[in-house]
Amino acid sequence: MNIDFVNPFLTSILNVLSTMAMIEAATGKPFIKTDQVARGDVTGLMGMAGEQTKGTFAITFTEPVIIEIAKNMLGEEETGINDTITDMVGEITNMVCGGAKKILSENGYVFDMAIPSVVAGKNHTIKHKSKKPIVVVPFTTGTGDFFVEICFED
Amino acid sequence: MNIDFVNPFLTSILNVLSTMAMIEAATGKPFIKTDQVARGDVTGLMGMAGEQTKGTFAITFTEPVIIEIAKNMLGEEETGINDTITDMVGEITNMVCGGAKKILSENGYVFDMAIPSVVAGKNHTIKHKSKKPIVVVPFTTGTGDFFVEICFED
Repeated sequence: MNIDFVNPFLTSILNVLSTMAMIEAATGKPFIKTDQVARGDVTGLMGMAGEQTKGTFAITFTEPVIIEIAKNMLGEEETGINDTITDMVGEITNMVCGGAKKILSENGYVFDMAIPSVVAGKNHTIKHKSKKPIVVVPFTTGTGDFFVEICFED
Repeated sequence: MNIDFVNPFLTSILNVLSTMAMIEAATGKPFIKTDQVARGDVTGLMGMAGEQTKGTFAITFTEPVIIEIAKNMLGEEETGINDTITDMVGEITNMVCGGAKKILSENGYVFDMAIPSVVAGKNHTIKHKSKKPIVVVPFTTGTGDFFVEICFED
């Protein structure tokens, strides 16, 4: 996978979280997903496809982190992962991928976005079915960690 | 959503399961997803995107059904949802969407496929973030049911 694909997503995440949720996240050291599985309680997933390239993006939050984001982004005190939270995760996924798509298109990588899907369920796992490496990037916030997974084939 | 998008997926599923797993599934009555959530233990997800259209496809299996499929498709007796099973679900998702894409392209609907993702976790739920209706189609097999969700925007 071309590493050029990763940075636009990281830039876009930090941008979305700071402007929409007033949350400053610190980017951790990226690693290649092997047997390790980023486990979360709610995940936004987006497929991307174009003539030259195709990929998938996942952003996985634990419950405390996404509840904090909801508090800041929506001004609502949610007590668990409900419809409001899953809607918001879909929206965050859309915004992050839209921001990355814009940067990537300026660099000559053109693709279309599919419709985001949101998975909820305690400790669910995600696997991307690709022969290419899957890059995992951990992020740290004041209330906990979240993980991003990016896989592109070109 | 144009209903023309649904049938090619149903045809492709029955075709993949009968040829690859010798399983004859009966198609139930499709319904529009509202509050109802198809709950499963393992789900294959595929994003699809093109200039005129974008969509998402999900196929959700309960554990007994996917273990039966693995027995027939791989000749292996699995005791739970493991790497072999999630790989196979990714492969089934690829084959089903590939078959549907072929039929749809003959009907003038052209899109590219993203990379399939596979979600595992007891009773996880899936939500597609779209303003368009999401069509759910239940299937019955000798060992239990599985569900397909299709959402297209055009």
